[in-house]
Amino acid sequence: MRLSRYFMPTLKETPSEAQIVSHRLMLRAGMIRQQAAGIYSWLPLGYRVLRRIEAIVHEEQEKAGHIPMLMPTLQPADLWRESGRYDDYGEEMLRITDRHKRDLLYGPTNEEMITDIFRTHVGSYKDLPLTLYHIQWKFRDEIRPRFGVMRGREFYMKDGYNFDVDQENAFHAYNRHMVSYLRTYERMGLKALPMRAASGPIGGDNTHEFLVLADTGESEVFYDSAILDLKFGDRAVDFDDKAACQSIVNEWTAPYARTDETHDPALFDAIPEERRKTSRGIEVGQIFYFGTKYSEAMGATVVTADGTRVPVHMGSHGIGVSRLLGAIIEASHDDKGIIWPEGVTPYHAGLVNLKQGDSAADAACEGIYAALAKRGLTALYDDRDERAGAKFASMDLIGLPWRITVGPRGLKNGVVELTSRRTGESEEMPPEAAVDRLAQIYAGV
Amino acid sequence: MRLSRYFMPTLKETPSEAQIVSHRLMLRAGMIRQQAAGIYSWLPLGYRVLRRIEAIVHEEQEKAGHIPMLMPTLQPADLWRESGRYDDYGEEMLRITDRHKRDLLYGPTNEEMITDIFRTHVGSYKDLPLTLYHIQWKFRDEIRPRFGVMRGREFYMKDGYNFDVDQENAFHAYNRHMVSYLRTYERMGLKALPMRAASGPIGGDNTHEFLVLADTGESEVFYDSAILDLKFGDRAVDFDDKAACQSIVNEWTAPYARTDETHDPALFDAIPEERRKTSRGIEVGQIFYFGTKYSEAMGATVVTADGTRVPVHMGSHGIGVSRLLGAIIEASHDDKGIIWPEGVTPYHAGLVNLKQGDSAADAACEGIYAALAKRGLTALYDDRDERAGAKFASMDLIGLPWRITVGPRGLKNGVVELTSRRTGESEEMPPEAAVDRLAQIYAGV
Repeated sequence: MRLSRYFMPTLKETPSEAQIVSHRLMLRAGMIRQQAAGIYSWLPLGYRVLRRIEAIVHEEQEKAGHIPMLMPTLQPADLWRESGRYDDYGEEMLRITDRHKRDLLYGPTNEEMITDIFRTHVGSYKDLPLTLYHIQWKFRDEIRPRFGVMRGREFYMKDGYNFDVDQENAFHAYNRHMVSYLRTYERMGLKALPMRAASGPIGGDNTHEFLVLADTGESEVFYDSAILDLKFGDRAVDFDDKAACQSIVNEWTAPYARTDETHDPALFDAIPEERRKTSRGIEVGQIFYFGTKYSEAMGATVVTADGTRVPVHMGSHGIGVSRLLGAIIEASHDDKGIIWPEGVTPYHAGLVNLKQGDSAADAACEGIYAALAKRGLTALYDDRDERAGAKFASMDLIGLPWRITVGPRGLKNGVVELTSRRTGESEEMPPEAAVDRLAQIYAGV
Repeated sequence: MRLSRYFMPTLKETPSEAQIVSHRLMLRAGMIRQQAAGIYSWLPLGYRVLRRIEAIVHEEQEKAGHIPMLMPTLQPADLWRESGRYDDYGEEMLRITDRHKRDLLYGPTNEEMITDIFRTHVGSYKDLPLTLYHIQWKFRDEIRPRFGVMRGREFYMKDGYNFDVDQENAFHAYNRHMVSYLRTYERMGLKALPMRAASGPIGGDNTHEFLVLADTGESEVFYDSAILDLKFGDRAVDFDDKAACQSIVNEWTAPYARTDETHDPALFDAIPEERRKTSRGIEVGQIFYFGTKYSEAMGATVVTADGTRVPVHMGSHGIGVSRLLGAIIEASHDDKGIIWPEGVTPYHAGLVNLKQGDSAADAACEGIYAALAKRGLTALYDDRDERAGAKFASMDLIGLPWRITVGPRGLKNGVVELTSRRTGESEEMPPEAAVDRLAQIYAGV
């Protein structure tokens, strides 16, 4: 994309309404615009990151054998009356009346609807195991929306639901989700730690939250620093293999890691002192096993091998897709702006022309732009007639992990500059070498 | 995908609530499920087609230089009070009050919001031309939702908005949209004819609708059959070239083609009688030029080269993404079920194992399944322990354009059967040849 043709309304001033760094940087980088309290437009740059995160979530869910579908944003109130949550949910539920005076609501989550779909179409244990998920806009009418997309009202969430014939199989589904989430977050460049948590309005005893450590987190967390050394990497996982999934879950749940809601000081104090850590954390996902809570209330049953009819065991599993943009920025930025991990960057590289209009510089930029495209890499080419300083400041603000700088002086020596946004280090090399280097870097992402 | 692990709840009975064939077939094929009047869940098979259509729309919009972003589903009522449409819109607008008693609405379209974004961030003619678009869920509270996703209440739409410094440039944006839409529909296997139309509540004099000819269409249309012979093909288009775009628009607007709202019997009668056609049509898109209607009302202006400040010229351009599934089925089905065009099929091929459990048949199916995947082709593999007749009926119902049938008898002669869903014709060939043939077919899609 050429910046001269793009719509990326960066701001010089720091917006006064933003209290935390990710909110400030998303506004300054022209990624979002508030349309009402807690309701945002995703401007082109923000939308690209949102789509990238969504794509990673889809890929990892499908690898785990979970099936994508899509439920609507609006739901009939009657489904929630069946489960008993229509009255329980309180003012965070956005209730709506249509022209025929029928009660609808903007879905904050989908346990009722998916259970309704299941009970309509599935009746035999032979159709299990089954995990369905969707990524859809949700609404929670927060009393005080704040922190930009981190605590918005209209937000984008992946929520998945497993249906299993018994607890043992449902626990495997739970483990499968934990494993797939570990890889999902790691691909986004995030260290998101699974922590024992409390279940809240979803219900159920078994639940883990995934938390990103950041000073601005809303939760207090307690953990054994040994968990920070774990790395998922690109290990192959057979998601049908119960023992293999359990072993990965054991690996990540062995070190102590809990939120303030489940914190156990006695267990915590048993950790060697130098590994005992307290921090703030941002919740970016949660998995639940809640057994037959909804299936019993709503009559979602299957016939088993021996002919008896039993309510299915269920769990639900969420990833806060829109919130993740904020969490990633909280975890990865500096004074100059955002630093995108390679896995979620909106463009693979920035391309800065130091002297727009200089025929050698213009030609070299066009050549690099085309060469990157040929390798499947996207560049944001700053082809505006601006000072170099302003171009660098824009690139640093929006945080593309790599920048190629092209100027007449370097070109006389046959070189351009490749700069890492994270380290700030630059290296001179011929244009082709810079393209090769980027192709190598992104081949591993 | 292996059918034994999929969730595709096909129905044997024809649902009584469905009045038109696309609605019946989408229900029977397990693609959608109604959650409330005019509000649908997209079950896995339906969701795959929806995503495929969405991907084509994105690709063609980006080729035309239009920039993707995303506006929220809910909008503040105040924006619509500014344009004057809050009161005009009537009962089709779903009005919502949040916990703080603020007026929101579920967006039926986005002229106001995009104009607000523009006026906040853009002030100079140098930033033009600019076309922003998004694909987002909309809501229109139809008094009588019907025909499944063809006239739902919650529906998925691409809407794009161009901002130009004057009418001449805005007309070019209009033409650019017509050209990109022609290719978009053709890639979906649709003949969607641009017809002069009336503007309705959006406003503006210049507008074309795109209509798919089908008996169940809600509009009456009148056209010169010469327009049916036009084909866009894979011609290269420079979307910056005003003359080139105008010439394509001229080609498609030369033959008479109008809806009943703009029909001119005198002009129609001047067409040679054998080319004079009347039919029903399904609207699948519309483009508008409405000039300064919203920019004047809302103060969206730019400073021109000579320093004066002028309201921008705008247009809006929509494609009914969710509706397209219905329209494609209306245009492409037979007594047995859906016939997906190759461009939008949920899976590239069906794979039917005539004798599940037979080691040769099982091994051949696994081999073909893997070989297709290696070529980037997706198969829906019916690995259930079912009669051949039931497997064929399912495949015919869901309408994958190609089917590979594998059985012990054929394998003894080293062949499988490749069948076209459209023609019903089958050909025997070695498994590798069937895979090659499919790769060839889809290379051109």
